[in-house]
Amino acid sequence: MSFEPLGKEIVFAGKIATVSIERYRHDDGEEVTREKVSHPGAVGIIAVDGEQVWLTRQPREVIGQQASLEIPAGKLDVAGEPPLETAQRELAEEIGKSAADWREIMAFHTSPGFSDERVWLYLAEGLSDDGAAEAEENERIEIVPWPLDRLDEAIAECEDSKSLIALLWLARRGL
Amino acid sequence: MSFEPLGKEIVFAGKIATVSIERYRHDDGEEVTREKVSHPGAVGIIAVDGEQVWLTRQPREVIGQQASLEIPAGKLDVAGEPPLETAQRELAEEIGKSAADWREIMAFHTSPGFSDERVWLYLAEGLSDDGAAEAEENERIEIVPWPLDRLDEAIAECEDSKSLIALLWLARRGL
Repeated sequence: MSFEPLGKEIVFAGKIATVSIERYRHDDGEEVTREKVSHPGAVGIIAVDGEQVWLTRQPREVIGQQASLEIPAGKLDVAGEPPLETAQRELAEEIGKSAADWREIMAFHTSPGFSDERVWLYLAEGLSDDGAAEAEENERIEIVPWPLDRLDEAIAECEDSKSLIALLWLARRGL
Repeated sequence: MSFEPLGKEIVFAGKIATVSIERYRHDDGEEVTREKVSHPGAVGIIAVDGEQVWLTRQPREVIGQQASLEIPAGKLDVAGEPPLETAQRELAEEIGKSAADWREIMAFHTSPGFSDERVWLYLAEGLSDDGAAEAEENERIEIVPWPLDRLDEAIAECEDSKSLIALLWLARRGL
């Protein structure tokens, strides 16, 4: 199985998403058209200390949710910034912490049929308030320290892909 | 935390994705603007028999992958069709099987910051070739029966959110 790109037309260029109509030719000669939503990508952080994982609740306007339970996360919206640095910045901005130990555990595409958004997931341990920036003043992000012995309840409540992957991974790893 | 929609402008209407610029007002008076990619939604199927889970490999042009390892899945592209029926149809079309037992295990948003795409995940057991439509002729979807005792390797190879959530859930449930 293989294919080559034939060309593309940008039909919308937004601040975050760019939409293009792209054509590809497969080896068997068939040509296909795809609507592609380009996205800068994002990071998510599994921030764990001894007895809890640090989560957030925030409004997600486009799905009509008032307080979506999620792991700390952020878009790769600073040009040239490596994903690990974005993750370190976001952890400080969202929950006001730094971490001594960082490990990339996986990267995935949120919806590879129509979007190129890729999310890098990091495990952050050795948490500390020292050296971290103050959490950004944003009264709409609530910081939620969640007990690890109630992880199943967080998995049941979460409804976004990065948080589910992160928490299922964490639950499986063992606590 | 709460907000109300103020209005929206559709800036692109495609076959799958529609993009709109939407404004919301939060209770504190602040108004925010969001780029929203509307998507019809999708289903994913965890199809398990005694010793294997049924996966697929298919090209994902928009992320440049020749053979993405994924669970069987499909968009909600038939107007009015309930997600369970879409799942049953897709299981027949993609791997040529029907299932006696269906259970919705969860639903999630792939990327709630900018898209309303929602994916319903089903566990399908009691698989049979009887009564199922023939797998659609599509030489670009390869059927991959994957041994359950090698699930970790599938989790390591998968790079899309629905398949990772499905396989991590399955691995945690126990085999």
